[in-house]
Amino acid sequence: MGTAENYQEVLRGKYPAKLHAKNVAEFIVAKGGDKTGTLYLEAQKSRLLEDNDEAEPFRQRRYFYYLSGCNLADCYLTYSMQSEKLTLFIPPIEPEEVIWSGLPTSVEEALEKYDVDEVKTTEDVNSHLASSANSPQTTLYAIPDQVSDETTFLSYNNTDFSQLKSAIETCRVTKSDYEIALLRKANAISTDAHINVMKAASSAKNETELEAVFIKSCIERGAKHQSYHSIVAAGENAATLHYVHNNAPISGQDLLLLDAGCEADCYCADITRTFPISGSFTTESRAIYDIVLDMQKQCTAALKAGVKWDDVHLLAHKVAIQGLLSLGIMRGSPDDILVARTSVAFFPHGLGHYLGMDTHDTGGNPNYRDADPMFRYLRVRGTLPARSVITVEPGIYFCRFIIEPYLKEEGQRKFIDEKVLERYWSVGGVRIEDNILITEEGSENLTPTPKEVEDLVRIIKAG
Amino acid sequence: MGTAENYQEVLRGKYPAKLHAKNVAEFIVAKGGDKTGTLYLEAQKSRLLEDNDEAEPFRQRRYFYYLSGCNLADCYLTYSMQSEKLTLFIPPIEPEEVIWSGLPTSVEEALEKYDVDEVKTTEDVNSHLASSANSPQTTLYAIPDQVSDETTFLSYNNTDFSQLKSAIETCRVTKSDYEIALLRKANAISTDAHINVMKAASSAKNETELEAVFIKSCIERGAKHQSYHSIVAAGENAATLHYVHNNAPISGQDLLLLDAGCEADCYCADITRTFPISGSFTTESRAIYDIVLDMQKQCTAALKAGVKWDDVHLLAHKVAIQGLLSLGIMRGSPDDILVARTSVAFFPHGLGHYLGMDTHDTGGNPNYRDADPMFRYLRVRGTLPARSVITVEPGIYFCRFIIEPYLKEEGQRKFIDEKVLERYWSVGGVRIEDNILITEEGSENLTPTPKEVEDLVRIIKAG
Repeated sequence: MGTAENYQEVLRGKYPAKLHAKNVAEFIVAKGGDKTGTLYLEAQKSRLLEDNDEAEPFRQRRYFYYLSGCNLADCYLTYSMQSEKLTLFIPPIEPEEVIWSGLPTSVEEALEKYDVDEVKTTEDVNSHLASSANSPQTTLYAIPDQVSDETTFLSYNNTDFSQLKSAIETCRVTKSDYEIALLRKANAISTDAHINVMKAASSAKNETELEAVFIKSCIERGAKHQSYHSIVAAGENAATLHYVHNNAPISGQDLLLLDAGCEADCYCADITRTFPISGSFTTESRAIYDIVLDMQKQCTAALKAGVKWDDVHLLAHKVAIQGLLSLGIMRGSPDDILVARTSVAFFPHGLGHYLGMDTHDTGGNPNYRDADPMFRYLRVRGTLPARSVITVEPGIYFCRFIIEPYLKEEGQRKFIDEKVLERYWSVGGVRIEDNILITEEGSENLTPTPKEVEDLVRIIKAG
Repeated sequence: MGTAENYQEVLRGKYPAKLHAKNVAEFIVAKGGDKTGTLYLEAQKSRLLEDNDEAEPFRQRRYFYYLSGCNLADCYLTYSMQSEKLTLFIPPIEPEEVIWSGLPTSVEEALEKYDVDEVKTTEDVNSHLASSANSPQTTLYAIPDQVSDETTFLSYNNTDFSQLKSAIETCRVTKSDYEIALLRKANAISTDAHINVMKAASSAKNETELEAVFIKSCIERGAKHQSYHSIVAAGENAATLHYVHNNAPISGQDLLLLDAGCEADCYCADITRTFPISGSFTTESRAIYDIVLDMQKQCTAALKAGVKWDDVHLLAHKVAIQGLLSLGIMRGSPDDILVARTSVAFFPHGLGHYLGMDTHDTGGNPNYRDADPMFRYLRVRGTLPARSVITVEPGIYFCRFIIEPYLKEEGQRKFIDEKVLERYWSVGGVRIEDNILITEEGSENLTPTPKEVEDLVRIIKAG
């Protein structure tokens, strides 16, 4: 699966489309599917913006990419489960287009670049589908609403729209070596960008300048897409969990929370760091930082294949309760507080989520209707398999919209010392987030971004 | 309409939504519409990416923005043509959302911020529509496919989906003072970004580094959106008119073509500069640069209200032919060459397009089926009104896919000296593009980006 040092060697090979296709096919067969079947997938279409002749920002369909490694628009893909033959269909050359846009990828170039058995043009997809139906019983597997009107499955006796999508979603949980190398690459580029923001922080005047530094660092290293909309939040803005404005002045603020990561060839980094803008923590912000770092380290240490994620999330709350008790923000017995779910007021979101081609990757089986507020927003439930990659992102926030209802509720307010709490509102929020690979023996942290206090202080002050 | 110096003062006022609404209503009435009618518009919806829980990049609907100045998602707008009452409907506060995202814009804040008569929440739109139908004959004007399923027009006797969209598209051609000030702002920010790229060019290794510099410069000044996908093309890449890769090494290349501009509050800058990466032109690249700059200056000098854009485009070709003849790339009589349309081989696109909320703004009436290749891609046909803003962007390119067919055609190749041409392929392409405001007396250049050779050389060498 490569190491932090040699992942670039892994990436010299091809994206393992055939391995992924084989895994998906085996999953379908194991669920009682048709082993003579054909898988059919489509790339995202190129589209124009509404009422405009500019192209919509392109984002490849992840299902298609997983079985092709191909980031071109308007392609198709078939995989014959019996012959294990993977065929990619790319758009034909349009002479009128060449004049304006130059030559597109040719059939020969695509065959060289992608891990597929043959490449044809999209004009050939229907005849290919017609000739590749092995027997009258053969099943065609496709994804609902992801089949072009022009494509016909008439030669197939059965068309199954129920299994392919969920099969891919489950297979995507356990990453292949190449996928892990791409996650390392996204983490390496994003780490440089985080460090550049730390260096720029003390002289910046507005959050947006730091967002600009982050995005520039990624683009200049070839990572043109962010995994998600960055959060660049100074002071109390960090208490807004989905802060999107990134445009407030930062002078006089204590901490900066930066939640940002780029994509590398469709694979996402998702990294959060919180640090003092001036290079010096206040007593209060340092105390909260230490608790969150402790939550993160204890949770990461608890990880290995087979561990139940719910238990690790619970551990994060236990560490948080201990820390908030030691500061006097909470009061009472840790067990009573845990039962009352009071710590949810300070750590309202889940401990983390699977990570891959999507920032919130597939296969997590959350239960957003869970009656227990501690687990309602947990995006992964159940045990973690080896080769899954998950974010560990505990946080403690001082958000008035979240905490104030607790202060009004009889059963909750007895556990919170409002007078001590008063000193912490200006901390805003602290979150520390790394991307962790689960292994049989434990885990490996794919995120090399500095987070120890002495490292942060050194980088910011040298900035 | 403000000046380059005082446009920020104009922007201290509100976006003139009521003025725009009134103009659109008057246009509809002048075309025989119902003067007791109501205009109905919807903002763009907030949406998630396909198969993903991340928000789609948001781009406000231009029709809605023109009559509201409001950049929020999921809003509605009504304008009563008789009472001239403009009503904005914003999404209500969702308590669950506030916990994660903080407080949204309130009714009071919206009333303060936007040039509207009243603000309600979207829950009230149907009752408002029901009560504002003035008489059984009243007409409701709306845009096809831009009406929510939840909205009902039952109280209106007539619903007209044919006039509102084209009325707005025509009104948008002539800009109000505030719109011109926003175009100045977008040009000011984009000019800083162009200059930063010039400064960074000689030490950059790859086109993508310069794209990063441009985007950073815009974001850190608060302009988070680009008007269009930038073209950052070194050497022969500039011959590909729709070059999108922006990822090639630039060492050893002569020119860099940068076509990039940002949005300021939904208004677009669209600026192209071409300059020598090292700070020194070759003889060939300087000669082509001088011709294109001459094309641009002569065309701009010819502009004033009432001028026919087709004639200005023709003028650009005449200047190009003269220039290419003087270099010996072309041979023969200028008139014969013009009749043969040979200069289209070197200047294949249109001279420019209207500019506003869209990069290729509305109202240009192009004829993409024109049999004449010189005018087929011209995005504006006919006369230019005062207060229209148009790009003047002549270019000369050495694109093999475009020129080689001319070299094979009997009636064309006699006008091209292939031997002289040989020395110019490495120039790639030169384009110079400014945004020009048409006035009664002439025009005003809204683009302060340097383009004189001595200025370019000074900036690049000082970089």
